Amino acid sequence: MKQGVLTVLVVLLFWGMAGGANPPMSEETEACLRCHRSVTPGIVADWERSRMARVTPAAARSMISKKRRVSYDCIPNTIERIVVGCAECHSISIGIHDDTFDHNGFPVHVVVTPDDCAVCHPVEAEQYGKNIMSHAYGNLQNNGVYRALVDETNAVQTFQHGKTTPGRPNEQTDADACLYCHGTVVQVQGATTRPTAFGDMSFPVLSGWPNQGVGRINPDGSKGSCAACHTRHQFAIQMARKPSTCSECHKGPDVPAYKVYEVSKHGNVYGGLRDEWNFKAVPWTVGKDFSAPTCAACHVSLLVSPDGEVISERTHQMNDRLSWRIFGLIYAHPHPKSPDTTIIKNRAGLPLPTELTGEPSSEYLIDAAEQEARRANMKGVCLSCHGANWVDGQFARLENTIHTTNDMTLTATKILLAAWDQGAARGLAQKDSIFNEALEKKWVEQWLFFANSTRFASAMMGADYGSFDNGRWYLSKNIQEMMDLLELKRKR
Amino acid sequence: MKQGVLTVLVVLLFWGMAGGANPPMSEETEACLRCHRSVTPGIVADWERSRMARVTPAAARSMISKKRRVSYDCIPNTIERIVVGCAECHSISIGIHDDTFDHNGFPVHVVVTPDDCAVCHPVEAEQYGKNIMSHAYGNLQNNGVYRALVDETNAVQTFQHGKTTPGRPNEQTDADACLYCHGTVVQVQGATTRPTAFGDMSFPVLSGWPNQGVGRINPDGSKGSCAACHTRHQFAIQMARKPSTCSECHKGPDVPAYKVYEVSKHGNVYGGLRDEWNFKAVPWTVGKDFSAPTCAACHVSLLVSPDGEVISERTHQMNDRLSWRIFGLIYAHPHPKSPDTTIIKNRAGLPLPTELTGEPSSEYLIDAAEQEARRANMKGVCLSCHGANWVDGQFARLENTIHTTNDMTLTATKILLAAWDQGAARGLAQKDSIFNEALEKKWVEQWLFFANSTRFASAMMGADYGSFDNGRWYLSKNIQEMMDLLELKRKR
Amino acid sequence: MKQGVLTVLVVLLFWGMAGGANPPMSEETEACLRCHRSVTPGIVADWERSRMARVTPAAARSMISKKRRVSYDCIPNTIERIVVGCAECHSISIGIHDDTFDHNGFPVHVVVTPDDCAVCHPVEAEQYGKNIMSHAYGNLQNNGVYRALVDETNAVQTFQHGKTTPGRPNEQTDADACLYCHGTVVQVQGATTRPTAFGDMSFPVLSGWPNQGVGRINPDGSKGSCAACHTRHQFAIQMARKPSTCSECHKGPDVPAYKVYEVSKHGNVYGGLRDEWNFKAVPWTVGKDFSAPTCAACHVSLLVSPDGEVISERTHQMNDRLSWRIFGLIYAHPHPKSPDTTIIKNRAGLPLPTELTGEPSSEYLIDAAEQEARRANMKGVCLSCHGANWVDGQFARLENTIHTTNDMTLTATKILLAAWDQGAARGLAQKDSIFNEALEKKWVEQWLFFANSTRFASAMMGADYGSFDNGRWYLSKNIQEMMDLLELKRKR
Repeated sequence: MKQGVLTVLVVLLFWGMAGGANPPMSEETEACLRCHRSVTPGIVADWERSRMARVTPAAARSMISKKRRVSYDCIPNTIERIVVGCAECHSISIGIHDDTFDHNGFPVHVVVTPDDCAVCHPVEAEQYGKNIMSHAYGNLQNNGVYRALVDETNAVQTFQHGKTTPGRPNEQTDADACLYCHGTVVQVQGATTRPTAFGDMSFPVLSGWPNQGVGRINPDGSKGSCAACHTRHQFAIQMARKPSTCSECHKGPDVPAYKVYEVSKHGNVYGGLRDEWNFKAVPWTVGKDFSAPTCAACHVSLLVSPDGEVISERTHQMNDRLSWRIFGLIYAHPHPKSPDTTIIKNRAGLPLPTELTGEPSSEYLIDAAEQEARRANMKGVCLSCHGANWVDGQFARLENTIHTTNDMTLTATKILLAAWDQGAARGLAQKDSIFNEALEKKWVEQWLFFANSTRFASAMMGADYGSFDNGRWYLSKNIQEMMDLLELKRKR
Repeated sequence: MKQGVLTVLVVLLFWGMAGGANPPMSEETEACLRCHRSVTPGIVADWERSRMARVTPAAARSMISKKRRVSYDCIPNTIERIVVGCAECHSISIGIHDDTFDHNGFPVHVVVTPDDCAVCHPVEAEQYGKNIMSHAYGNLQNNGVYRALVDETNAVQTFQHGKTTPGRPNEQTDADACLYCHGTVVQVQGATTRPTAFGDMSFPVLSGWPNQGVGRINPDGSKGSCAACHTRHQFAIQMARKPSTCSECHKGPDVPAYKVYEVSKHGNVYGGLRDEWNFKAVPWTVGKDFSAPTCAACHVSLLVSPDGEVISERTHQMNDRLSWRIFGLIYAHPHPKSPDTTIIKNRAGLPLPTELTGEPSSEYLIDAAEQEARRANMKGVCLSCHGANWVDGQFARLENTIHTTNDMTLTATKILLAAWDQGAARGLAQKDSIFNEALEKKWVEQWLFFANSTRFASAMMGADYGSFDNGRWYLSKNIQEMMDLLELKRKR
Repeated sequence: MKQGVLTVLVVLLFWGMAGGANPPMSEETEACLRCHRSVTPGIVADWERSRMARVTPAAARSMISKKRRVSYDCIPNTIERIVVGCAECHSISIGIHDDTFDHNGFPVHVVVTPDDCAVCHPVEAEQYGKNIMSHAYGNLQNNGVYRALVDETNAVQTFQHGKTTPGRPNEQTDADACLYCHGTVVQVQGATTRPTAFGDMSFPVLSGWPNQGVGRINPDGSKGSCAACHTRHQFAIQMARKPSTCSECHKGPDVPAYKVYEVSKHGNVYGGLRDEWNFKAVPWTVGKDFSAPTCAACHVSLLVSPDGEVISERTHQMNDRLSWRIFGLIYAHPHPKSPDTTIIKNRAGLPLPTELTGEPSSEYLIDAAEQEARRANMKGVCLSCHGANWVDGQFARLENTIHTTNDMTLTATKILLAAWDQGAARGLAQKDSIFNEALEKKWVEQWLFFANSTRFASAMMGADYGSFDNGRWYLSKNIQEMMDLLELKRKR
């Protein structure tokens, strides 16, 4: 009962404080709000609900370590004791913004980047730079093999004289498809004048816009977008911690993490009990604030036990808990050492982390010791709820699945090689695309859809996603359909 | 603090009012409830939670314009000052109900229709009549081409002497499949006597029942069902405004709006923050009541800014904000002028809004100026949170996607024509169905599944639904699979 | 107003009681918690939130019948007046646990089984034993036909000399795929010593672990896992009643119940209004606690009307409300009499409830009278919200769908037989697997995916899941694709 009364008092106190005296905002932000309250009322109201609008960097910095959400001790004097508003993010910056323009006398840049967020959150920005996600644009577009897959997927094909021909890649289409998640290159292409409620005004014209992909190339030269997960303009931690946020890019057949989570036991608990959880607490207490992990709990968040002991440190690198890269290329393989995967070359000279027949390009990949260390990091999270026997059994199954799905990919690859050899398709030897024919596309689906799905199901207990829903059933059926095509289309 | 105290007082006052004195109900409704409280307790309890059960039409009418939910000023005296209960909807009507029967001395009709709702909501009913949805039954069943597709899809096929033959269409199957959403024809087929807790009673026998499809043909001659979205018997506005309601008919591969929304940034925000939103407020205030749109926000609801300025008027026509019809037929095309699309004939004489090769049947479709006006309507909603550059970029991508997906459909169509020509399939020239063979079904999937999915993804930021999940990957693969069939099955 | 004040008082009273005096726990459980609070803090906190941790069996037993959640009157004295904690479930048991080991001086078994739960919940455990789910392991693994399907699905295939060969089944893969839901055999394989925070300790090594499949074969010889639905360690009734719990095993294309529910009108209401429902009340009052059924409402829960009249009794047998088995084998058929389906033999000598051509193996299946009785059970639930005409119409459609989908499966089967006959595939006569070739896999998809999906859509109003999303469109397309393969691959 005493605790209850105390809670009420604390709430009232906090309420009084919150309602009574909001911290000051900068004159610049006040100027922004004067017009934007009516011009873009939605985002202003959204920001007003945010923590940014209520807590100054100085107050944020003064919290004890585990509760802190800013990671810098030398926040500039100019913004230390004001709330972080429009001007603070769209005006101040570390780098030089090509998209800065004069807006009613203020220098404003349109695109807020990780370098801008780094003013208060440098540790997170630095970690994210080591995250393979931040290189998602270049890893796709500057890799010849992947680029060929993108082109064959996105090109418009025409049919003439009994043949199909792919057109030239379309920039708008790429931005709408692969680069929606991987990120576009945002560049200033000039300026335009628009009529507004306050008279004609000049604005920069940006190509690759809008985009919030995780590897976006920004006008200040930085990579990525924090808003991919920390959605503007409320930047609510409860949103970043909920799996729906990850679903934006992790739901397709190529990377079905969210779908698998949804039907996993963890996802079931989330579905059943999330209304009773606290998604805002920092640090995030296992068992007290939530009773089953979300994506963020295993891959990102600072977790503590009810006694306050750290279970896992916050990370924005994410792959530092992952020993295998279970999607992203033809065979599952140990994680690349560098987030820039364009530097990788296999023995055959292709920019791939394995040979076409599966052997890893080991010099570019983490070694067994590092794999074990990362696995131990992840197991640490599991062990806060599960016994060692349980956890070891779970990880042993994942290892088995990695090997069997790689084997099933190898079988599909051998059929493809036979098809090229026997004239059932035209491939490397014929200097033809390896992604353009139906049989080749089936080979792609073997690893990009079915092996990936099976591995995600195994990693996160996805049951049917490892069986009938893009799982082993399809791995097996797809091979037989490739065999039929080989038989029916063979020329020699 | 002051505001908090005020809130408490207002809540208490409202509570007192609500609990203290419910408005009167009609004697007829009281009579209904006397039995139905025990016969169908679920729907009675559901109705008791509804606004209908607590607010009289007179009280509803007396609210200031933007808060009003009834759109008529001359509500009949008989129901003006009572709550709207069983008898008011199932007994009173504008039209003549074929399904009216004597039920314990009361004339009761089973099926409540838009004409019944129009007693208090005539503007909504009228708008809905202009909505293409209200014609969903006839547009499907009275269009020869579409009807053929329905028949080939729903028929039971038999196999004999090495050939398959489709059976006659099955009425129950149609009602269970296409007409579940499009609406059935509900007709009185006679009467039946059933034993009940109150002795034997006579009830009408209805064909096409149950059904709540959006284009249902009702026993009073009206079209549609308000309950398709305003689910009986709570008719909760918070439900109509949540996207799950739309998922009932907009989740399949043919029209994946809900799936796309779920993974879109808007859907992510909804997933993460909806618990903190107010889904009941009328009008609906952008930024204050919600921070990302649901389906209703963009397509239906009356939206205002926190200052009370109207951002978009309520509409039940819905297509008045849509410049393109991105699904529903072979090629995306400007919206039809009339909601009755059976009047359309292309130059080839087919009831289609475009030629088989994509050219629009322009005289039946809205012109560029009307397209631009509708686009501006929709952009008005976007601009309450996004800058003009962002919004224009988004719409430019959609336009590009409409053109590229139409091009990919044209390519598939040309392959189909070649297949007919070369004997790989039997089509129009052979007076055979254009929907019955595997190759033809692949052609249908090109536009009905893959082009549609890609367009929805583009319109609503669906990422993978425009890439690997029924998106461009399939547009491209499907063409190659059609090419293989053409090669393998060609006879001449 | 008065009611409001009363509510506040009751809440305060309850709060005081709850906070003031938790019932005692056993010394053994206290000993467990002393270490496990830091070793596995997540599950300890989870359990502390559970009803088990707050209510003694004696208190639970003392409630009036409809509110009771324990079904035994002779709960052992030893646990009657303490809360049910770690030791009570992991130490006490009816049967002999092979997995019992000495743990700090206490005999502890790792795997808690239905026989353990039966100490307080014997009626539920007994009902569950009659549920076909409890036999899910044996029904799959001890049925030659099904076992062959499992093997072909899960085996790694190799490609050599132009042929594919399936490898030997992999135990880990089976556990990760089919047996994830069906249940593994959990067996003690020895012991291992692990370093722990409290020094080296010995633990049993279990094969088939982890697993919580519904038909798990436990180390005490019992079948199943209550935790499949009553998720450890909170065992929250609100979770078991929410459909996400069922999605773990009922979401794939083979049994898409959850997907269908999501888009059904019932699922839409759940999606829109669940925040306002009471998922904890026992009994569960239709209309008052919820306004549309979840999976549990129709298939499991004790439902009453607002007047307290029983609408349906609680059951853990579940199939006692189901007249047809709409998935699980080649043709939909009346439910088997025995939950052990391995005893079934059709006239052709195969362990199937129908012939390959669809005729039911009637002596093993419930008869028409029992079907009617079960149908009446289910209709009783529907009738609490719907009129008889509505309900009859709904069930008539399901019957029609069962017949038409069986017919479409028969057509596919005839094509398969023709393919075997004409050398387009190798089947029974050639002593070859009936599940290994592409054409045979298409036949499997006809019943396992498309007929099942169509039937679920029909049973639960799934709209597009009976049309374009794995529904009739695919039933029809698949037959034509089988015809193409028959034509292209026929040898004679």
